[in-house]
Amino acid sequence: MVDSLIIKNVNILTMNSERQIIENGVVIVKDSTIEDVGGEELLEKYPSGNIIDGKNGILMPGMVNTHTHAAMVFFRSLGDDVQDRLKKYIFPLEKKMVDKSFVYFGSKYGIAEMLLGGVTTFVDMYFFEDEVAKAAKEMGIRAVLGETVVDFPSPDSKEPYGGLYYGERFIEKWKQEELIIPAIAPHAPYSNDTEHLQAASALAEKYKVPMMMHVAEMDYEVEKYRKEYDMTPVQYLDSIGVLKENFIAAHLVHVNDEDMDIIEKRNIGIAHNMGANSKGAKGVMPLKEMYRRKLKIGLGSDGPMSGNTLDILTQMPLVAKVHKLFNQDRSLFPASEIVEMATIGGARALNLQDKIGSIEPGKKADMVILETHSVNMQPIHDYYSVIVYSANPSNVDTVIVNGKVLVQNKCLTQIDFGELRNKISQWKPEIN
Amino acid sequence: MVDSLIIKNVNILTMNSERQIIENGVVIVKDSTIEDVGGEELLEKYPSGNIIDGKNGILMPGMVNTHTHAAMVFFRSLGDDVQDRLKKYIFPLEKKMVDKSFVYFGSKYGIAEMLLGGVTTFVDMYFFEDEVAKAAKEMGIRAVLGETVVDFPSPDSKEPYGGLYYGERFIEKWKQEELIIPAIAPHAPYSNDTEHLQAASALAEKYKVPMMMHVAEMDYEVEKYRKEYDMTPVQYLDSIGVLKENFIAAHLVHVNDEDMDIIEKRNIGIAHNMGANSKGAKGVMPLKEMYRRKLKIGLGSDGPMSGNTLDILTQMPLVAKVHKLFNQDRSLFPASEIVEMATIGGARALNLQDKIGSIEPGKKADMVILETHSVNMQPIHDYYSVIVYSANPSNVDTVIVNGKVLVQNKCLTQIDFGELRNKISQWKPEIN
Ligand SMILES: [Zn+2]
Ligand SMILES: [Zn+2]
Repeated sequence: MVDSLIIKNVNILTMNSERQIIENGVVIVKDSTIEDVGGEELLEKYPSGNIIDGKNGILMPGMVNTHTHAAMVFFRSLGDDVQDRLKKYIFPLEKKMVDKSFVYFGSKYGIAEMLLGGVTTFVDMYFFEDEVAKAAKEMGIRAVLGETVVDFPSPDSKEPYGGLYYGERFIEKWKQEELIIPAIAPHAPYSNDTEHLQAASALAEKYKVPMMMHVAEMDYEVEKYRKEYDMTPVQYLDSIGVLKENFIAAHLVHVNDEDMDIIEKRNIGIAHNMGANSKGAKGVMPLKEMYRRKLKIGLGSDGPMSGNTLDILTQMPLVAKVHKLFNQDRSLFPASEIVEMATIGGARALNLQDKIGSIEPGKKADMVILETHSVNMQPIHDYYSVIVYSANPSNVDTVIVNGKVLVQNKCLTQIDFGELRNKISQWKPEIN
Repeated sequence: MVDSLIIKNVNILTMNSERQIIENGVVIVKDSTIEDVGGEELLEKYPSGNIIDGKNGILMPGMVNTHTHAAMVFFRSLGDDVQDRLKKYIFPLEKKMVDKSFVYFGSKYGIAEMLLGGVTTFVDMYFFEDEVAKAAKEMGIRAVLGETVVDFPSPDSKEPYGGLYYGERFIEKWKQEELIIPAIAPHAPYSNDTEHLQAASALAEKYKVPMMMHVAEMDYEVEKYRKEYDMTPVQYLDSIGVLKENFIAAHLVHVNDEDMDIIEKRNIGIAHNMGANSKGAKGVMPLKEMYRRKLKIGLGSDGPMSGNTLDILTQMPLVAKVHKLFNQDRSLFPASEIVEMATIGGARALNLQDKIGSIEPGKKADMVILETHSVNMQPIHDYYSVIVYSANPSNVDTVIVNGKVLVQNKCLTQIDFGELRNKISQWKPEIN
C-alpha cells in the first residue's frame, strides 16, 4: 500500500453530474482511486500523504482521445495537403515502412505526446497492436487497443483478414491487464466484407471487448453502400448486426436522421475527430443533433498524419468553432459542453463512465493539472473558456493516471524523452 | 553602432519570392537590418558578432497580426458564448471599465503575449490609443495603431466622433517614431455616418497614414446598407470614396464578386480573422477567390474577447482547415500558403512588404526561431506543415524585432512578466 496522494491548491472542474467547480480544492487519492474531493478542510481530515501543490492551477479529469493511430507519428508532416490520400499515399507507405519496431517506437512517442498534453486514456487502431500495448503498459497510460482487420495483405499479415487471427491472440494476451482493454478494429466497412465484419463482431462478443471502426467518413464509402445496398454505411452495418453497445464508430460524418435513430437505439459510442475531418475536407458530423439526443460522444485526434497533434486540448476550440460556424450560432456548444465531450463524454463513448471521466470519489485517479501562470492562461473569468479558447498542450503541468504521477512540471517522470525523440527525428521515410 | 548579430544553426524559411528554404543556414543582422542570408559559409565571411545558436530550430519571418484590440485582454474568457454580444455586452462593459490605465496595462500584456507567440508587428484599433503606443514603444514591438472613431460617446471621448480629434493629435505625436505607424480607425460603417467616415479618410490622406475599419462582418450591417442604399457595405464605402490603398479592412465576411472587383481595384489590405469569425459564427470570408486574385491578405487574431489568444500560430491551422472544409478540397491552401499569409501576406496588407515579412538582405530584422525539440515538433518532413499543423505559441523560442532580441529561451528579455501578469490576474470586472 502506497502513501496517499494529496492534491491541493487547485481549482477543480469535477465534471460530475452537477458540473461542480471547487475553487481552492483538495483531492485525496489512495492507490489507483479517488478517495475524497472537497475544499481545504480535507487537509485536516487527511493529514499525511505525498502532497502535490497545484499552484492555483486547474485540476480537470484526464482527457480521453477516443480515436487515433499513434504509431503513425513517424509519418507526421508527410503529404498533409495531398488529395485522395488514403489509398494512393498512406496504404502504400505503410506497406513499405511499418514493422514491429516502427509501431513500438511510434506508439511510445505518440503516448509521450498524449501524456504531456493531458490525455490519460486513448483508443488506438493499428497493425502489430501488440507493440502498442507493450508501449502503453511501459508508459502507464490507460488504453483501448484494437488490432486492425482489412481485406488486403497488411504490414502484420500476409493474408487478407489476418488481423482477425492476430486480434484474437492479442485479446487473449492482454485481457487481464489492469490499464489495457484489448479490442478488435476492422478498418472500415469498405475495406472489409460482410462475412468478416460479422466475424469481428462475434469475436468482440465472445471476449466482451469493444469493436472499433471508421464509419461514414468517406464520400466513396457512402456511394458504395448506396449503389450496392441502397443504404447508408450506418444502415448497412446495422443490417448485418454489428452495431452494439460495445461498438465505437470514428467520424460518422455522413449520417442522416434515420442513421441517428439507429445510433441512438444501438447505443454505440462516437469518436468525433474534427481536426482530421476538417483538414481532410471530409465534412462536418451533425454534432448538434447528436448532442441533443444525448448520444455517447467523445473527441479524437485521429492519427498524426490526419490530425497531426495527439492531444485533445487542440481539438476543443476547433470543435466549438466549426460547429458554431456551421450552425450560425455563437451560443451553441458553450465551452463547458466541449470540456464535457473531452472528458466524461469520451468515457461514455468507451463505456468507461463508471471508472473515469470525472473527479469523484470511487473513480480511478486519472487527472490533469493545467498551470495558469503562462501568458495565454490569464485572466480567468471562466475556467471552461480558458481551457477551450486559450489553453494549449504546453499548459499541461501534471498528469496522473490510475493514481501514478506520469507528468510533473511538464516533463515525463518515467522515461528519457530525449532518447525517444531521437528515434523519431532521425528516421527518414522511403517515399516511392 | 552595435555589434552585428549572427544567427546560426537554423533552418531558414526565407519567404522570399522563390520561397527559398536554407537548411543549416546563417543570418547576419547589422543594427536593425538583415545584412546577409546564406549557408554556413557566412560564418567565415562575418567572423565577429553576437552569436545566437538556433539549435536546429526553424527561423521564419516574424508574424504579422493584422487586426486586434490588445487591451481587451482584461476581458478574456468573459461572455464567450453569449449571443448578440457586441452591442448588448461589450460596448456597455467598455463604457464602464475602460480607462487609460486599463488600456496601458492591457496592451502591454497583449504585446507580451504577441511577442512570446512570435508576432513582431501588430495592428491595433482601440480607445486611448496613445496608451497602446506607449506600451508598444516600451515593449519594442512594431505596430500600426489606430484611434477608434464611433458615433457615440466612448471611453476616451464625451462627444460622438471625439476619436477624430484625439486621432489627429495621436498621429501628430507618433508619426516620427521608428517602429510605430499611427493611423485612424473608424469602428465600422454602421457605427459612423458618411460625413465622419469621409473626414477620417481625409485625415489619413493628410498625414499619409493607414485607415482601418471592421467591414462586412455583421449580418445587420449587410442588411442596413441593402435597405438604405441597395448596396453592400463594400460598395457603400467605395461610393463615398474612402477605399484607398492605405485602407485595411478587417473581416470582409460578407462580400460578393462585385465587392472583390472593388477590393482589387482599390488595392485595399485584408485582415482575415478566422478564429473570431468562427467563434462568433459570423461566416466564412471567400478566401479562395481572394487569394486567386492575389489580394493583400494577412491574418489577424481580433481582440482577445473574440479570438482569445493573440498569437498568429493559433490562427494558421484554423484558416487552413475551415477553408478546406468549406471548399471540400484538402489540397486547397497548402501549409506554405498559410505561412505566407501569416508573414509576407500580412506585410502586404499593411503596405510594409518592402520593409518586413521575409528574411532577405535589406529588410528589417523581424524574425522568430521556433524550437524543434518539443514533442509536437517532430518529426519534420516538411517545415511548413510543422508550423501550420503542429506548432503552438509555446514553441516560440527567440523573437527579434528591428534587430533587438526581445524573447530568448521563451522569456521576455526586457520586462518582469510576473509583475505584469499580476495586473491582469488580480483585476475583477464589474458586470451589470
Ligand atoms: Zn482513423
Ligand atoms: Zn475587431
